[in-house]
Amino acid sequence: MDGRTGLPVVGMVGAGQLARMTHQAAIPLGQSLRLLAEHADDGAALVAPDVVVGDYRSLADLRAFAVGCDAVTFDHEHVPNEHIAALEADGVNVHPSAAAAIHAQDKSVMRRRLTESGVPCPRWTTVGDAADLDTFAAEVGWPVVLKAARGGYDGKGVWVVGSAAEAAPVLASGTPLIVEEKVAIRRELAAVVARSAFGQGAAWPVVETVQRDGICVEVLAPAPALDPETAEQAQALALRVAADLGVTGVLAVELFETDAGLVVNELAMRPHNSAHWTIEGARTSQFEQHLRAVLDYPLGSTAPTAPVTVMVNLLGGPDDVEPKSIDERVHHCFAHWPDVKLHLYGKQFRPGRKVGHVTALGDDLETVRARARAAADYLMNGGAL
Amino acid sequence: MDGRTGLPVVGMVGAGQLARMTHQAAIPLGQSLRLLAEHADDGAALVAPDVVVGDYRSLADLRAFAVGCDAVTFDHEHVPNEHIAALEADGVNVHPSAAAAIHAQDKSVMRRRLTESGVPCPRWTTVGDAADLDTFAAEVGWPVVLKAARGGYDGKGVWVVGSAAEAAPVLASGTPLIVEEKVAIRRELAAVVARSAFGQGAAWPVVETVQRDGICVEVLAPAPALDPETAEQAQALALRVAADLGVTGVLAVELFETDAGLVVNELAMRPHNSAHWTIEGARTSQFEQHLRAVLDYPLGSTAPTAPVTVMVNLLGGPDDVEPKSIDERVHHCFAHWPDVKLHLYGKQFRPGRKVGHVTALGDDLETVRARARAAADYLMNGGAL
Repeated sequence: MDGRTGLPVVGMVGAGQLARMTHQAAIPLGQSLRLLAEHADDGAALVAPDVVVGDYRSLADLRAFAVGCDAVTFDHEHVPNEHIAALEADGVNVHPSAAAAIHAQDKSVMRRRLTESGVPCPRWTTVGDAADLDTFAAEVGWPVVLKAARGGYDGKGVWVVGSAAEAAPVLASGTPLIVEEKVAIRRELAAVVARSAFGQGAAWPVVETVQRDGICVEVLAPAPALDPETAEQAQALALRVAADLGVTGVLAVELFETDAGLVVNELAMRPHNSAHWTIEGARTSQFEQHLRAVLDYPLGSTAPTAPVTVMVNLLGGPDDVEPKSIDERVHHCFAHWPDVKLHLYGKQFRPGRKVGHVTALGDDLETVRARARAAADYLMNGGAL
Repeated sequence: MDGRTGLPVVGMVGAGQLARMTHQAAIPLGQSLRLLAEHADDGAALVAPDVVVGDYRSLADLRAFAVGCDAVTFDHEHVPNEHIAALEADGVNVHPSAAAAIHAQDKSVMRRRLTESGVPCPRWTTVGDAADLDTFAAEVGWPVVLKAARGGYDGKGVWVVGSAAEAAPVLASGTPLIVEEKVAIRRELAAVVARSAFGQGAAWPVVETVQRDGICVEVLAPAPALDPETAEQAQALALRVAADLGVTGVLAVELFETDAGLVVNELAMRPHNSAHWTIEGARTSQFEQHLRAVLDYPLGSTAPTAPVTVMVNLLGGPDDVEPKSIDERVHHCFAHWPDVKLHLYGKQFRPGRKVGHVTALGDDLETVRARARAAADYLMNGGAL
């Protein structure tokens, strides 16, 4: 507890955009997020006063950071699971727990657990060599999807391969791998929920996520033309997974919609790109909800604030963008789209890097989507207006 | 400009709740508010990293603070006007300017200017002694309202007096005073607008403000049952005052609704309590808009996000409140009112002190108002639920 305010102190390991937006959500709760940053100029470290620079792979750094925190949580999956467990053993109030977090850190553990629980997944297996791959592909057909069991994100650590020969360099790398059937996808959805330590769950409307080169570029909330039964099924599935795995905080369940129904693609146990739209589009944002959940506060209303919300990621454009100044592009963006909400993460712009997002809200999907896309495109790529 | 992000740096003199909420609004714009705080534990200083502790009455402190700021603005009216002018003479980009700010600092200057411009005001005059008061009261009738020309807020510096004798202690104090007729008020309204340096104006819906002991306790947005013509007249009046006085940033025009129409009560040139509802209730909050205006960005949409928004201030309750822990009261508040949004300012609780506010939104005024009031009452006064 903060002795002055009588309110709790949450520590977040990692100081990227998720921590930045969580700090923003902490302010109205009377709090100030404590950060373990890799670098003093990480996006969240630029806007919050209580920053420790340290190494999330160092148990000593994590232990020192946790002192005085009422709860410790994470803005990424890369803290070694054994360190999370060690903090718990120390008596630190960590969310999610090591036992839950492992399912967002290791795809092999995640697939095994979900399959055992009867949660629909693509057919999959662990794979050691080319023979394993051939055996699996004989059953499900080529191409198949190879995935690094640990450490992948934004399309990194995923390879679609048409033969064992094509997979040879990945197999030779020694990275622990799983292989999955290549599911015939209609589209991708995400069911994002939060679960408190007490066990209360709350689900936001199910969204459609649009990927390009494995990176989420756009989120449509709610998922257009999703039948209510499937939407409810997706929410129920995410709430069940959260409860089964003992997740505390936000859980994002990335889903494939297929002709045969929904299958789970990935899990993330932290605020997630697929729910950035909730800042303006839901009564309670995922960032506020994550704080409530890890502090074991009752959860907030997830009701939408508008019929349609569209979020478009800002991915760094070319270096020779005109006008060159981001400040000048922000000026023109505000003039042309006074209703579009901007979120910049304090990052250096690099081609393809997630440096922010924009959100638009309204009644008509195509209008809202067109405005959000045009604003995002102009901010990153400039050009004539 | 911040060399790393390419985005502007705004400095705010004062680090109370207005600065705290402005920092919150700066984060998504890719910025971090720079603060000149009186104390290191001021509400905004607890949540922002770029804090200078100094004296807003010291020109040297103000000058040192302004170095590197793309714009300097204020969370209160107490910076000496001559210091604002001196900063301008230095070439600092100050908003509002000294010439505009004086109208929010000196009621005599404000009344003279508005009266000259034909803006409806209560009848008024400056007053030096009991004879002045008797002359004025002979014209408008007792009681009259004495006001300190400078430095009043939240009902302080205002005295309703029924005779010159009753006014004697105030008259004897030497404080420069004005006197106004006591207007027969139907209710109080506020028209809040923003104006950019370029001259763009934007108005939020006109609201009703409810006062208790001179302190705003509740804001209803939009003002219930206000005829559209009067609402438009109030917005036009506020935009005209902003343009006439050259205001940059947010301007709040406090109004009395009377049988004879609207009259202006007070002006404030900064984010204002009567527009805290815009954080959730409007597409662009007053805090974001203030930043846009002082940076001469185009202004954001002021469209409401719900038919009805009600804001209720949290005024510190008695010391023996039960449950004693504010954290415990927040728990119960969240459980009972999952849709009500909480804003705590990081202040020590003292009876009657503004320590936060809550906001509720919806379709039906009475339902929304009841929920916001009940949540605020419980947070401050505790009791059974």
